[in-house]
Amino acid sequence: MNSIEQHKENLRVPEPTLRRLPWYLSNVKLLKQRGERYVSSTQISKEINIDASQIAKDLSYVHISGRTRVGYEVDTLIAVLEDFLGFTNLHKAFLFGVGSLGGALLADSGLKHFGLDIVAAFDVKPGLAGTILNGIPIFHSDEFGMRMEQFRVNIGVLTVPIEIAQQITDYMVAGGIKAVWNFTPFRIRVPEHIVVQNTSLYAHLAVMFNRLNCNEIK
Amino acid sequence: MNSIEQHKENLRVPEPTLRRLPWYLSNVKLLKQRGERYVSSTQISKEINIDASQIAKDLSYVHISGRTRVGYEVDTLIAVLEDFLGFTNLHKAFLFGVGSLGGALLADSGLKHFGLDIVAAFDVKPGLAGTILNGIPIFHSDEFGMRMEQFRVNIGVLTVPIEIAQQITDYMVAGGIKAVWNFTPFRIRVPEHIVVQNTSLYAHLAVMFNRLNCNEIK
Repeated sequence: MNSIEQHKENLRVPEPTLRRLPWYLSNVKLLKQRGERYVSSTQISKEINIDASQIAKDLSYVHISGRTRVGYEVDTLIAVLEDFLGFTNLHKAFLFGVGSLGGALLADSGLKHFGLDIVAAFDVKPGLAGTILNGIPIFHSDEFGMRMEQFRVNIGVLTVPIEIAQQITDYMVAGGIKAVWNFTPFRIRVPEHIVVQNTSLYAHLAVMFNRLNCNEIK
Repeated sequence: MNSIEQHKENLRVPEPTLRRLPWYLSNVKLLKQRGERYVSSTQISKEINIDASQIAKDLSYVHISGRTRVGYEVDTLIAVLEDFLGFTNLHKAFLFGVGSLGGALLADSGLKHFGLDIVAAFDVKPGLAGTILNGIPIFHSDEFGMRMEQFRVNIGVLTVPIEIAQQITDYMVAGGIKAVWNFTPFRIRVPEHIVVQNTSLYAHLAVMFNRLNCNEIK
């Protein structure tokens, strides 16, 4: 492994850690609202029921160190966590497929507070192109290349029907998209250097329904 | 372990399996559209790049058996998978917190196709109670108990601000909700018999931003 590869490896935070850090962030934000100025991993641990040693280990990735006995300064911890998680930088994104879920995501202004700025959306349905939803322009999918030159985005949000999920992914990647946030229940294939984040609401529903079923048997 | 506990244990499908099954389902639906009548795990394996033995193992939970050489019948496999995953039964749900994300979920009719029927929503904001969004009535949160008697739902969708995430969870559980679909970045605490499914879009964003960052270092 050369030094650049080593550096990349150091930056690569384990996924379970990345999924827990937002829990700590929201918890520390709450403590701040309650007037706390310092917080220890033991305190966070009690609030959210995760091992204090695990929390300390997770926070070690963030390069923040607490002070003996008083812990982490709340304001600093919030700022450092938000920055580390990428929520303070706006990452421009395109959304593909303005159906029911796609339209819902365009309507959700909350994503912007966590660093995702959907600057345009694409669809082929007649009547959609040229319209604006929640301030976001919708273009015909043919305009993707042209709009890419205009906006220079890295991220594509995939909310198309499964029949065209792979085809639109290939189209995105060929056009220069570096990361695909896949909301479809379809397992897309991408070249090795492309990031895929799967968020299938339907898979989560399946897990919830199964667990509910198991609990209902008395 | 007594026989009922054993039965419950048998019904409890591992989460990774439950997350993969919807991939197989969407893939088999595609194959059906292409006119295929039979499909083997090897065929699915090639399409979605998962080990054929893993697929066969996952499908063994579903209690469907393929025929030697020809594989699974496509129509049967789709029907059995949809039923097994709970997508064919409508599960009634309440949604708490009609903010940006909550409103977006109410607008997403897609959830209904996968078995989740949000029959009412609750909020405390003046002006929201009494309105209807995408056919779904919005009530003041105080009406939860009364509406519970009317609708008898099991599932609560949590899309409130983090400051009240725990409080509203406790309120739901006290009112008889058996499963919480938690969209907040807050780690909620519930009694042991209550199901929690965490779907934090923001945690998924954090993972995607980190991976994108690592890839950008050349």
